[in-house]
Amino acid sequence: MTATAAVPIRVRYQECDPMNVAHHSAYAVWFEIARTELLRQQGAVYAQLEKEGVFFVVARLSTRFRKPAVYDDELEIEVTGHPSVGVKIEHTYRVVRNGVLLATGETTLACVDRDGKLQPVPERYLI
Amino acid sequence: MTATAAVPIRVRYQECDPMNVAHHSAYAVWFEIARTELLRQQGAVYAQLEKEGVFFVVARLSTRFRKPAVYDDELEIEVTGHPSVGVKIEHTYRVVRNGVLLATGETTLACVDRDGKLQPVPERYLI
Amino acid sequence: MTATAAVPIRVRYQECDPMNVAHHSAYAVWFEIARTELLRQQGAVYAQLEKEGVFFVVARLSTRFRKPAVYDDELEIEVTGHPSVGVKIEHTYRVVRNGVLLATGETTLACVDRDGKLQPVPERYLI
Amino acid sequence: MTATAAVPIRVRYQECDPMNVAHHSAYAVWFEIARTELLRQQGAVYAQLEKEGVFFVVARLSTRFRKPAVYDDELEIEVTGHPSVGVKIEHTYRVVRNGVLLATGETTLACVDRDGKLQPVPERYLI
Repeated sequence: MTATAAVPIRVRYQECDPMNVAHHSAYAVWFEIARTELLRQQGAVYAQLEKEGVFFVVARLSTRFRKPAVYDDELEIEVTGHPSVGVKIEHTYRVVRNGVLLATGETTLACVDRDGKLQPVPERYLI
Repeated sequence: MTATAAVPIRVRYQECDPMNVAHHSAYAVWFEIARTELLRQQGAVYAQLEKEGVFFVVARLSTRFRKPAVYDDELEIEVTGHPSVGVKIEHTYRVVRNGVLLATGETTLACVDRDGKLQPVPERYLI
Repeated sequence: MTATAAVPIRVRYQECDPMNVAHHSAYAVWFEIARTELLRQQGAVYAQLEKEGVFFVVARLSTRFRKPAVYDDELEIEVTGHPSVGVKIEHTYRVVRNGVLLATGETTLACVDRDGKLQPVPERYLI
Repeated sequence: MTATAAVPIRVRYQECDPMNVAHHSAYAVWFEIARTELLRQQGAVYAQLEKEGVFFVVARLSTRFRKPAVYDDELEIEVTGHPSVGVKIEHTYRVVRNGVLLATGETTLACVDRDGKLQPVPERYLI
């Protein structure tokens, strides 16, 4: 079963570069915000998970940039979680402005403990 | 023919996150610095290119994170350009600390003009 | 006459550092977002101003950090504009979490044209 | 007694904004790098200090921006430490490009322990 969230982001001035567009490194930050909100919607708070010794680190990231986002744009970051048994979680992302697709992305997170050792994703987060 | 550069980067405090490691969004910034230095080594200055109406935008980015980088680490960002005739340039990256591979990455840049329209990569940059 | 806005900000993971707190450089970004929203509330859109050749550059910034903000905190950035005839605008800021003051700040913006030359703040923004 | 260092910084593309200049929030990051290098020059490594339970948090920051820095500029960040007995350290900064002063700044750091409680600056860092 997959879960989905759509998170609004307004492009910050500081995120834009001399080409007048959002710098490509900002998308990774937006993806992170979106999957945190997806988790919150599922009843879990990432800040709390870390206190319990459950950390998610990004093992893979890929992004395809189709059209630029510009300063002050109101974007929706759509995120879908693809849960699976094991130590990893996949997410896919779509960055959309007024129904127009600007970018797509994928991440693989690995679940680790306080010492960085791989551990199974806690069952209650495999919603 | 390919060209290669190895660019030193020291991990900034501001680039690190509560897990005590460099945040994954920083790697895209380091890759950008590395390919700029590769270009400089080839005799071109990106800041000058933009004045001449030659812009490179990132169309694709992918990164695989193997081991974390931590604050104050001295890294080498190895970059290889894979020139080709057309409107795109591929680069591959390796992030290395004392000979240990921490991450790998790939980008595809598209060459555009001041209005964001695709244009051929100027021949003199196809070194 | 002064104008005031209170803008909600949720602290991003990428904005936090190994001390588990929001890095001090993030506050300047939050202040910028807050004064942009104050301007919007007054009927002006900064992105539009730039298209009309009205730019605001930061000439002075000072911040006093009293208590740390941590990841996922919901903050209010309170901003007050202190309009005056001339080429400058002063703003003051308060960063508040659940009624507790975390930081205060002040900026002086200078109004410049497309070439960076000082110009009077357009009268209609001296609300 | 005061100590001084001059640290080279090349302005990153990602640090620049649609006005084609380094965003003002970047200066706080450069100041941090400069005082870390000053510390290193004095024989101390901040990353090591944190392991020993000695943390420095920024209590005050002020910056005056005189002239903009642009992408690819080679800057010198001059930092002077003003040591004093107690829990605080003052630093002053000058951002210089080819002998031209672009900005000045001041910070006050407070020395805290792992729990964020004020503690005296260790004597060996009062050089």
